[in-house]
Amino acid sequence: MDALDRWIVEHQKPYTEELRELCAIPSEATDPAALDRAAAWCMDRMRAAGCATREVRIPDVPALAVGEVGAGRRTLIAVQHYDVQPAVPLELWASPPYEPAVRDGAMYARGVSDNKGHLLLRIQAIEAHRAALGELPVRVRFLIEGQEEGGSVDLHRLIDTEPGLIDGDGALKEGGQIDPAGRPSVSCGNKGILYVQLHVRTLTLDAHSAGATHLPNAAWRLNAALGTLVDERGRILIDGFYDDVTPVSEADRERHASQPWEADEARRLYGIDRFAWGRGDREAHLASAFEPTCNICGIWSGYTGSKTKTVIPSEAFCKIDFRLVPEQDPDKLAKLLRAHLDRHEFTDVEVSYVEGERAYRGALDDPLVKACVSVAEEAFGKPATVIPNNAGTSPMWVVSHRRRLGNATLGMAHVGSAAHAPNENVLLAHYWRALRATARLYSEYARA
Amino acid sequence: MDALDRWIVEHQKPYTEELRELCAIPSEATDPAALDRAAAWCMDRMRAAGCATREVRIPDVPALAVGEVGAGRRTLIAVQHYDVQPAVPLELWASPPYEPAVRDGAMYARGVSDNKGHLLLRIQAIEAHRAALGELPVRVRFLIEGQEEGGSVDLHRLIDTEPGLIDGDGALKEGGQIDPAGRPSVSCGNKGILYVQLHVRTLTLDAHSAGATHLPNAAWRLNAALGTLVDERGRILIDGFYDDVTPVSEADRERHASQPWEADEARRLYGIDRFAWGRGDREAHLASAFEPTCNICGIWSGYTGSKTKTVIPSEAFCKIDFRLVPEQDPDKLAKLLRAHLDRHEFTDVEVSYVEGERAYRGALDDPLVKACVSVAEEAFGKPATVIPNNAGTSPMWVVSHRRRLGNATLGMAHVGSAAHAPNENVLLAHYWRALRATARLYSEYARA
Repeated sequence: MDALDRWIVEHQKPYTEELRELCAIPSEATDPAALDRAAAWCMDRMRAAGCATREVRIPDVPALAVGEVGAGRRTLIAVQHYDVQPAVPLELWASPPYEPAVRDGAMYARGVSDNKGHLLLRIQAIEAHRAALGELPVRVRFLIEGQEEGGSVDLHRLIDTEPGLIDGDGALKEGGQIDPAGRPSVSCGNKGILYVQLHVRTLTLDAHSAGATHLPNAAWRLNAALGTLVDERGRILIDGFYDDVTPVSEADRERHASQPWEADEARRLYGIDRFAWGRGDREAHLASAFEPTCNICGIWSGYTGSKTKTVIPSEAFCKIDFRLVPEQDPDKLAKLLRAHLDRHEFTDVEVSYVEGERAYRGALDDPLVKACVSVAEEAFGKPATVIPNNAGTSPMWVVSHRRRLGNATLGMAHVGSAAHAPNENVLLAHYWRALRATARLYSEYARA
Repeated sequence: MDALDRWIVEHQKPYTEELRELCAIPSEATDPAALDRAAAWCMDRMRAAGCATREVRIPDVPALAVGEVGAGRRTLIAVQHYDVQPAVPLELWASPPYEPAVRDGAMYARGVSDNKGHLLLRIQAIEAHRAALGELPVRVRFLIEGQEEGGSVDLHRLIDTEPGLIDGDGALKEGGQIDPAGRPSVSCGNKGILYVQLHVRTLTLDAHSAGATHLPNAAWRLNAALGTLVDERGRILIDGFYDDVTPVSEADRERHASQPWEADEARRLYGIDRFAWGRGDREAHLASAFEPTCNICGIWSGYTGSKTKTVIPSEAFCKIDFRLVPEQDPDKLAKLLRAHLDRHEFTDVEVSYVEGERAYRGALDDPLVKACVSVAEEAFGKPATVIPNNAGTSPMWVVSHRRRLGNATLGMAHVGSAAHAPNENVLLAHYWRALRATARLYSEYARA
């Protein structure tokens, strides 16, 4: 046990309390006051860790909490967020989502993994580095936004107010995964997203279902429109959808396929016998990095209460997210979706553009990636896995594309962390290891 | 203006107040206390009109309110109900559904048309008959149940406690329609229903939509299953679904097609350019009497809140009603639906049987039908339309099939009455005419 470990052990109790405090703030997109509290909490915590802080604000957008600390030839931008996914459905939580609870070595709370635990340990690691390893030989700039779960739609505008915010050498992304075998995963990029809401109205008012012989039903109409979007292999049927996809070399494909991937564990966790779209293990593994998706996040129409109501719904709604790969452009794809629906005579199905973000993939041999691999392997005692990008979305394109920054994750989520789902949690044992790894990264990256 | 008219005019105010009072009781299936209050209200009102009443009860079933009055060679069974459809979505009501409001000569309230207005005027008509036309020359037996909107699933059990309840000569059904040209419609039967709920679970828990490349989405799964049920012409694709349908003779078809049908008005009301399933006016008219349907009443899965949540829903739900025609058997059709889903490899899509009722169609030349036509034409001053059955469902098979009773409606709903929808209403001018017609029916049927 070295000085860093000792320091972490001594601080486990207050650091756990800090995590509990941050996670108790219900910073969902629909609660601006909670978003403000979370931003202020992050500012205070960064200052306590020795950061110079400032709050970047534009009207009607959650604050960007900025903190800077350290000095050196390299600047590492830590791109984090304090907003969380909606906690609903509440009834599926074993303990309330905003009353963080520790059970069996895990803390349960909405956002504890995505991304409050990760952002907090990256601040705590500054403190740990100074106490156990000395002054920071690198400049670390935190950019902690409050709109990530809504697609970081205004992050580029926040950055436009001060373009120097993205001057740097590499970007430490939100999150980071530990696989079921305990191997840390370092991700060099992320998928993009196009989030849309579909709406169709077939009648000016709901009708008694006795009229179902001749009055058009909005739920049937939506069902038919959705049926044209994806084939049974998961291939998206929108004309031109794949046109801008950067081809992946056979070498990169093989490299990715050779990395460990815990297919059995994923199936066990989700209680499934086989993967979706007829994909085998290898195909699913490749798809998770390289294939875009079209996913129904929610659908609703008509009567959803108990017992019965016999009604022809006049309206139907659907939320869909498409996960994108480099170089797909969400704005262009939204137009292609519109054209697709029109071509299939669904001109009555309205598409609302909710959010769009581009995918980003940094160089796999960037010094930041190498440094993350090194410190992660030391802290977790297992070989690290390098993946070209993870399957989720982060606003890394906005921060990284101008200078083609290296990207990496260095985190502690486990396969059962349930991000975006009820009973989100982190294993505290992973948390302390990730804290060690991150403290060491600040030196390692300066040297790499 | 004759004695009957004068009596009605004199009683418009208290009778309107009575209607308001009955409609203020929120007697939805989920509110047993309100159902009890509505039943008690009907019993009191029938007694006030001179009926001998009794409440038939079996455990856990809303009471059947029975009232008998009058004497003569014929017995007319008035099959009514005091329960109402759910009032949701409340935000679409211009005034609260259980605070009956009169605007522009119409009363707005949940249930005011279906069926509280109709049941009340049939009781008030007893009183009116006695006051203006003398003692009743017919026996009238009210059977007012509280489970009609839930498919009258226990009505046969209530009747089994006292089989004499359905001894009679004809049955006056709930409701009754006035078309946009002011013509009363007399319906001789009704469709049946099979109401099911579908449920599919693809994952043990909701997942982050980053996994959409390989984790099965319940909403997509349900969408695919629904896509197999009906073709684009509205034909139901379940093997054997049409096997038991009683063929309709060309003569009956022509007779029905020759009756007035306000296609333009229906399109105007619902704001549509054309009917569903590619049906033209004549085809839609025939289908509304003779074709079964498969209708989505409600569908829900995943995140349905504001803004975004990026999630793979683990569960999806759908409520479907099939309207049936003679001699389709809902129990048999539920089994065929199960077999259909299995054959299409949707063994994971669970089907819950919620309710089933058989269709019923009485003789078109029954004395009750003739009497209803006669009094309706007199009261409304327009030729009546006789339809073989309406497109909705009533529990007439249970009451009528043993003795093959004649069935008829004699009512006052208009095409914009919005039964089962927000802003349900009746025109009071129609109400008073229907009250006159019904009072006269009690004599006319004795003579017919």
